[in-house]
Amino acid sequence: MPKLPKIHARREHDPGKLFKVERLDLEFSNGVKRTYERLRSHGLGAVIVVAMRDNDTVLLVNEYAAGLHHYELGLVKGRLEHGESVLEGAQRELMEEIGYGAHDMIELTALSLAPGYMTHVTHVVLARDLYPAKLIGDEPEALEIVPWPLSDLYTLVQQPNCTEGRSIAALYITRDYLQKETE
Amino acid sequence: MPKLPKIHARREHDPGKLFKVERLDLEFSNGVKRTYERLRSHGLGAVIVVAMRDNDTVLLVNEYAAGLHHYELGLVKGRLEHGESVLEGAQRELMEEIGYGAHDMIELTALSLAPGYMTHVTHVVLARDLYPAKLIGDEPEALEIVPWPLSDLYTLVQQPNCTEGRSIAALYITRDYLQKETE
Repeated sequence: MPKLPKIHARREHDPGKLFKVERLDLEFSNGVKRTYERLRSHGLGAVIVVAMRDNDTVLLVNEYAAGLHHYELGLVKGRLEHGESVLEGAQRELMEEIGYGAHDMIELTALSLAPGYMTHVTHVVLARDLYPAKLIGDEPEALEIVPWPLSDLYTLVQQPNCTEGRSIAALYITRDYLQKETE
Repeated sequence: MPKLPKIHARREHDPGKLFKVERLDLEFSNGVKRTYERLRSHGLGAVIVVAMRDNDTVLLVNEYAAGLHHYELGLVKGRLEHGESVLEGAQRELMEEIGYGAHDMIELTALSLAPGYMTHVTHVVLARDLYPAKLIGDEPEALEIVPWPLSDLYTLVQQPNCTEGRSIAALYITRDYLQKETE
């Protein structure tokens, strides 16, 4: 487990520099009126990559997560960049975060973060037939790669540092998908 | 499927009224310095409830989700209130959203939303041995209850309106937990 970064300073920041909030005046079909707020994603969506080294082994990464100030064990992921397709973004993130490309990529589904008040969408990409290919990304440190058997997600989700709903959902969805494929 | 609410107006809102953002000046163990931003949760955490009507049937709700402007098929959930324990909050949300209480409740795990830049934590509660008990909540309309077999999550996650990572993760984790229980 890597050593946690030191927090030298913590200060308040103007939320308007990072987030855009929208108010919606709504009228429900029963006539009830409400105003709801939602956080608008600035970005182009995100991608989460299930990188399979073989039929049962997924390559996880242990990456510093500032929200919880711990090293989170989860899937390769990142934001899409301008002009990039979902599969291109997945390929780039894979090369940057774990040093592999994939000959075989397919989008399995798209997940939302908190659909009640966030517009964010994350595309889930299954990556197979990996080959070594490193791209330099913006990571502040090399990420630890942790191979994990898809057949034992139960033990994985009991790890205190494997917490992210999207990652866990993507892993189970992939396991189901691979199972159906061989049926 | 309920009829979508009408959007009478959409306007920008000051993000500072809803969200708090913090900047962290970090120094990684390799000496690299970075400044990361994170969205601080104002709340006390949230709860997501897996309400089982019998050993295989979970009660889902179809609830308007402003972030995606669709009716999202997912689990009962809501924010914890001041002075409430996780199980008390789960009980309240269950009564408000689907009109049941539960004699048997257990917290299975806690999930994060986007641990890289959000501090949010959601407690996953398994609720069994249900009994009718209605509390009036702040929902603008009655929620449609959709019973679903845990044995067929594969079909569920292919529904275009079942998208939320946390809900899907909680359902799979519960299925594994119930399976282990009977082993």
